[in-house]
Amino acid sequence: MQIKQQSITVSSPATVANIVCGFDILGFAINQPEDFYTLTISDTKGVTIINEDNFNLPLKAEENVAGAALLAFLEAVPEINGFTLISKKQIKPGSGIGSSAASAAGVVVAANFLLNNYFNQLDLVRFAMFGEKVASGVKHADNIAPAIYGGVTLIRSIFPLDIIPIAAPDLYVTVVHPQIEVRTADARQILKQNVLLKDAIKQWGNIAGLVAGFIQHDYELISRSLEDVIIEPVRSILIPGFYEIKNKCKEVGALGGGISGSGPSIFMLSKTKDIAIAVENIMKEVYNAIGLDYYTHVTTINQQGVKIIN
Amino acid sequence: MQIKQQSITVSSPATVANIVCGFDILGFAINQPEDFYTLTISDTKGVTIINEDNFNLPLKAEENVAGAALLAFLEAVPEINGFTLISKKQIKPGSGIGSSAASAAGVVVAANFLLNNYFNQLDLVRFAMFGEKVASGVKHADNIAPAIYGGVTLIRSIFPLDIIPIAAPDLYVTVVHPQIEVRTADARQILKQNVLLKDAIKQWGNIAGLVAGFIQHDYELISRSLEDVIIEPVRSILIPGFYEIKNKCKEVGALGGGISGSGPSIFMLSKTKDIAIAVENIMKEVYNAIGLDYYTHVTTINQQGVKIIN
Repeated sequence: MQIKQQSITVSSPATVANIVCGFDILGFAINQPEDFYTLTISDTKGVTIINEDNFNLPLKAEENVAGAALLAFLEAVPEINGFTLISKKQIKPGSGIGSSAASAAGVVVAANFLLNNYFNQLDLVRFAMFGEKVASGVKHADNIAPAIYGGVTLIRSIFPLDIIPIAAPDLYVTVVHPQIEVRTADARQILKQNVLLKDAIKQWGNIAGLVAGFIQHDYELISRSLEDVIIEPVRSILIPGFYEIKNKCKEVGALGGGISGSGPSIFMLSKTKDIAIAVENIMKEVYNAIGLDYYTHVTTINQQGVKIIN
Repeated sequence: MQIKQQSITVSSPATVANIVCGFDILGFAINQPEDFYTLTISDTKGVTIINEDNFNLPLKAEENVAGAALLAFLEAVPEINGFTLISKKQIKPGSGIGSSAASAAGVVVAANFLLNNYFNQLDLVRFAMFGEKVASGVKHADNIAPAIYGGVTLIRSIFPLDIIPIAAPDLYVTVVHPQIEVRTADARQILKQNVLLKDAIKQWGNIAGLVAGFIQHDYELISRSLEDVIIEPVRSILIPGFYEIKNKCKEVGALGGGISGSGPSIFMLSKTKDIAIAVENIMKEVYNAIGLDYYTHVTTINQQGVKIIN
């Protein structure tokens, strides 16, 4: 183990988990919004957190997503006493676009860079999952994997952890975050524990189609495969205007889309920037009509994941 | 519509449906065994069947798999009165390697060739599905699609029919057909209509991995993804020696495998011919020890599907 430098700043991307039919196994990173973290090796034991953002997240490392991920990292490198973390978070917690994963992934990639990339990406995902546990109680990886690997990632298996990058075309992504709260734990609880075999078959046909469509850059196939007969019919109830947005966006040419992670954000994939902007306008119109506050982002798939800045 | 010639002989391949985790959506064609069909345009209305094989299949067209497929084809081309079909079938019915699909697919490809390929492949699958209905009562396409398209095929959806060829490497395939009867209808009936969501998630992770592994020619990923937590645990009960064969074959280097279609045949995929033969020897040993008759085949994935002979 070798220390490359004492301090580093990274940007860490928002991510879209599930990608409609790929519940708990697929996700991708996007270029906007993103968090910024500056990490410095410290002689003080543990993780010292300095918040330079507006989210007032916990300062105790073990209660903080980034802190918990860094503590897991530190356990594996007894040579390092601690880190000081300056958080300039921009991805709003609870948005459904991987805010906690951006924290956890960003800081472990930063820490690893300082140690001259001592660990591999799979190790980093494992450390970052300790952060997700703080956020939602579950050590899931469907946002962390794309944040660290970039692009579209498949989590074939959690035990043992098996992450496969899926080469996907540079698609445009439009995200709307209506200002309502959907807690991940609640979104999970309303799911049925049993599914009909016939629905599961439809779902895995679509997943196979989506993966083939991504790798073969077959936009029509991607579009046809963006269908979820299991999770979306249940979770969409929690998101006002969901089907109106989805249907209207497809009418203006979006390939498809759905709930980002467990919501409340909705994402749509498009082949061109023009369509992605038309999609954004529809999202705005629908939520203006409902009278609900929202943020929108028009961005692209982030093929790189967490980026080293300086 | 143009008649290209009056008579043609084709060979039609055996097929492996499901491919472990891809129940009802994936399948591939193999080069051995295969059926031979000679089809001649006839002035006699309907389909005249001449069996030159040992299976004594029904001579009434509507009760015969090939006949029913040809009748569906004839309905779409009123310009043709009928066909005479000489069947030299070699794929044993009830083997689980797509015997009925070989009949249905072979004759419709032959008929289409005589008509200068008037119909597209999707049309041919639809005609051939009428044959499957005679065989098992269900118009499924998971053997017909690979028999017609060749290689590995994905049936993303049955309604509407959406078939996607999946580019896969040239793998070796070893098949053992133990001489017991497993009726497709029975194999279907013992399946549970509900599955646990957590099992479905594992399954679709494996399906996504298998499709990515095929397209990216990632043999390790193919191997890890050849896992079925839903269908195999139930259906394997019907097949003596199943797990002993599967485990021992993987020990000698097979990538993996499982039940072919609804059984009783078992197939294993291997990267080399040597391993495929070692796999065959294990299959023989196990069934010799059990005292059960069997056939084996060592072959490769058939990338072409039904072949025009002359």
